Amino acid sequence: MTAAPRLQGVFAPVVTPFHPEHAPASGRFVSHCRWLIGQGVGLAVFGTNSEAASLSLAEKCALLEALLEAGLPAERMMPGTGMCALPETIELTRRAVRSGCGGVLMLPPFYYKGVSEEGLYRAFATVVDTVADERLRIYLYHIPLVSQVPITRGLVARLLKAYPGAIAGMKDSSGDWDNTSAMLAEFQPQGFDVFAGSESFLLRTLRGGGAGCITATGNVNPGPIVALHRNWRAQDADARQAALDATRGVFQRFPMIAAMKAAIAWKSGRDDWCTVRPPLVELSDEERDALRRALEQVGFEMPEAAALA
Amino acid sequence: MTAAPRLQGVFAPVVTPFHPEHAPASGRFVSHCRWLIGQGVGLAVFGTNSEAASLSLAEKCALLEALLEAGLPAERMMPGTGMCALPETIELTRRAVRSGCGGVLMLPPFYYKGVSEEGLYRAFATVVDTVADERLRIYLYHIPLVSQVPITRGLVARLLKAYPGAIAGMKDSSGDWDNTSAMLAEFQPQGFDVFAGSESFLLRTLRGGGAGCITATGNVNPGPIVALHRNWRAQDADARQAALDATRGVFQRFPMIAAMKAAIAWKSGRDDWCTVRPPLVELSDEERDALRRALEQVGFEMPEAAALA
Repeated sequence: MTAAPRLQGVFAPVVTPFHPEHAPASGRFVSHCRWLIGQGVGLAVFGTNSEAASLSLAEKCALLEALLEAGLPAERMMPGTGMCALPETIELTRRAVRSGCGGVLMLPPFYYKGVSEEGLYRAFATVVDTVADERLRIYLYHIPLVSQVPITRGLVARLLKAYPGAIAGMKDSSGDWDNTSAMLAEFQPQGFDVFAGSESFLLRTLRGGGAGCITATGNVNPGPIVALHRNWRAQDADARQAALDATRGVFQRFPMIAAMKAAIAWKSGRDDWCTVRPPLVELSDEERDALRRALEQVGFEMPEAAALA
Repeated sequence: MTAAPRLQGVFAPVVTPFHPEHAPASGRFVSHCRWLIGQGVGLAVFGTNSEAASLSLAEKCALLEALLEAGLPAERMMPGTGMCALPETIELTRRAVRSGCGGVLMLPPFYYKGVSEEGLYRAFATVVDTVADERLRIYLYHIPLVSQVPITRGLVARLLKAYPGAIAGMKDSSGDWDNTSAMLAEFQPQGFDVFAGSESFLLRTLRGGGAGCITATGNVNPGPIVALHRNWRAQDADARQAALDATRGVFQRFPMIAAMKAAIAWKSGRDDWCTVRPPLVELSDEERDALRRALEQVGFEMPEAAALA
């Protein structure tokens, strides 16, 4: 067990900028990460909203290396390292740990459906045993609507018992508060840090003793989300939560990843921020206009967004 | 367009043998592939039943290389090359095409769910345009219960129109005869070869003008399946189909991949054939006994299985 501080607060699954022909735009990626750190947001690079599944292992290794070379703080990074094939999960996890990353966010292997708890236990156990590094802190990634492979409470209990140091917490992207609440009640007291999967549940998660949130809209609306995390005991906390919900609600009317990229393109003045990789599709011009109008109505701002250009 | 003969007949998604610590057992893999070719079965290596999703890109490249070095016929190979990340799909596809493989079996990117037809079209189009080799023949892999990302008729029509040479056919693992039948009626006359996703639909597929089947149980019951393909116009075809169904029915009572490996372990006398990679789990001793008894009841044989040891 390491003595380093545990991760908490607000993290963003950092959107990955591409060149027009779909190669990752490493420079803009570093700029965006630096801007997020400046806003108080941790770097959950290679998450679902990062189009991480659409990046090769080699591309992810190169992007992580670029962040480290740029001097961004590894202890504020929680890269997504869970892939379908254990050797690849192990390789990226090992790189993250050796680079000093504060944690890793780990999907279960997600191709095979209906797999047993025993099989998923073995998958995570194999990673812990093979990486074999006491600095390893895994945040289990529960996003059943996308992965279709849930992280059940039975699985968490078993992993936590076997690996109390390495199994550090979870991101609950089920969108089901009852599930988050049950995870908080059962596991948070054991030092298993529960992060809400979006800021919609941030206040409730903090009131329930949780660690924070890992949220897509952390990419575009970081300041107000971080402010709620810092002031969640203040009298205006519910009003802050309501304002966050209004902004998030706008993004949720559109395909989320494309919409966030369109917002960054708008605020930074760089159109190539709109590029997504297949199988995703960028917003149409009409959708971009509608997004912009709706965001203006909720008073959306991205301070210092020129730095993202 | 190339003049080489189009793929047809019976293919198996070749099960991947592992060493006890889960490294791929390349020697046994080559032996199994050689045995399959001897039985008249083509090599759809790296399919769902190959645990391909659990193999790293590097492992797949090494296994393909081992087959080629062993002198197995590339023109009878249809490796699965579809992964979530296009750069990886492109790399493995390019290797397969340059090695002379008869075709490639391609999953759509399968992490993101509910993606648009436009997005999937762009994914496949990007592969064709980037590989840019007239020898490329893609068999679209429709396995919605596992991938959760279907290959719709609208998508096939659009791809076939844009790339009539490269879009060569499909494997329909929907388990829905109505879908296979519709694909046969609409696209087979255009030279788009429809393979049934299991031998359960082999006779119906051949009667509907289809090309054959790509079936898990081709790994363990190749002779009788190939015999039906060769004799599908014979008077006893329906009886042959019924016998195939009975054997398949036994395997389907168990987790399929683990059961096939257990059958090979039994018939070859090599227990390490049972090993699967997490998140899959091997059969219990009780399940192995039950499988064996049930297979004996249907007269199951694996001729020359000693070659698999």
